[in-house]
Amino acid sequence: MIKLIGMMDSPYVRRVAVSLELYGVAFESQPLSVFSTFEEFSRINPAVKAPTLVLENGTRLMDSSLILNYFEAQAAPERRLLPVTPDALANDLQTLGFILAAAEKAVQNVYEHNLRPAEKQHNPWIERITVQLLAACREWNALLEARPENAVADQVAVTSTVIWTFIQSMIPHVVNAGDFKKIQAVADVFENQAAFKKYPFS
Amino acid sequence: MIKLIGMMDSPYVRRVAVSLELYGVAFESQPLSVFSTFEEFSRINPAVKAPTLVLENGTRLMDSSLILNYFEAQAAPERRLLPVTPDALANDLQTLGFILAAAEKAVQNVYEHNLRPAEKQHNPWIERITVQLLAACREWNALLEARPENAVADQVAVTSTVIWTFIQSMIPHVVNAGDFKKIQAVADVFENQAAFKKYPFS
Repeated sequence: MIKLIGMMDSPYVRRVAVSLELYGVAFESQPLSVFSTFEEFSRINPAVKAPTLVLENGTRLMDSSLILNYFEAQAAPERRLLPVTPDALANDLQTLGFILAAAEKAVQNVYEHNLRPAEKQHNPWIERITVQLLAACREWNALLEARPENAVADQVAVTSTVIWTFIQSMIPHVVNAGDFKKIQAVADVFENQAAFKKYPFS
Repeated sequence: MIKLIGMMDSPYVRRVAVSLELYGVAFESQPLSVFSTFEEFSRINPAVKAPTLVLENGTRLMDSSLILNYFEAQAAPERRLLPVTPDALANDLQTLGFILAAAEKAVQNVYEHNLRPAEKQHNPWIERITVQLLAACREWNALLEARPENAVADQVAVTSTVIWTFIQSMIPHVVNAGDFKKIQAVADVFENQAAFKKYPFS
């Protein structure tokens, strides 16, 4: 069976888990940590990156967007999470780009504070990524506001929800939920759906 | 006309430039820096991430894999840079995953040394990402060795070549070219092709 290696406290691992559930792809979740189980993880993937997805033939895929590329290409039309027409695809990829930029800057913030002693933290870097993080959140919120309401999960809904839950769980003091009401509203809708509840942030 | 914002010293910008050239997509290169021209860049993309690709209708795409997803989906069959059959696609995505993991760790190494004063650099972090970088390069080299020789550029050839040139230009003291002969041989072939010479690392 397909194996998904990584913990659900990584928004990238959770993005893949929820998407696979929506595609109807069966998989086994193996919640190894890239920190506390570095050696064990490295025996599966020497680059020690989560998520790592191991196909039945042993092929190891990593990087959540590349993994999803593989499954999206094979999804039945009614299971697809991205649109097919170029303009609609560009629109969703634009939104995903801002969401993933926010995710990257949020992860950099968490790493800066959690993986370094205080004297090795660099304030100009923290200030730079915070400006980028908040700017990305503003674009993300505005792009969601411009989308029609839809309670059926697509890739924008999945990624928006898991990244927002990660940000609000880890650095709510940096990104004030009240400033991004549309992102919060989307997360409130989808976190209550079965695919998201099956793989909660943890 | 489509605009590609970012400098060719970013392997992600160069990856997109060379790929667009191979797809036959006309674009204008606008070499703004995310550092020295932060303000100017932020007026186009407030998240200040390179590459940013601006479509003719103003849609802003970012993240090289998302940008390439958009163009790959529309490429004529003979221009595609990724295979279509699931096993071949998985195989190429596996190789791209290791190459992009190496790229990420190489960029983190460069950022650690170039964006922080010496006293803010954190040796345990540098050691961790160096282990990951070299492990990713070993997998990358082995996966290239297992591929049939091919002088026609596909996405693995593009990404492998631009990331290797970046690594060998920026941190050759960390990644010894002599240890990764197949990666070097592939880069030697493709850096001599027109699409790569049109957008050199700079």
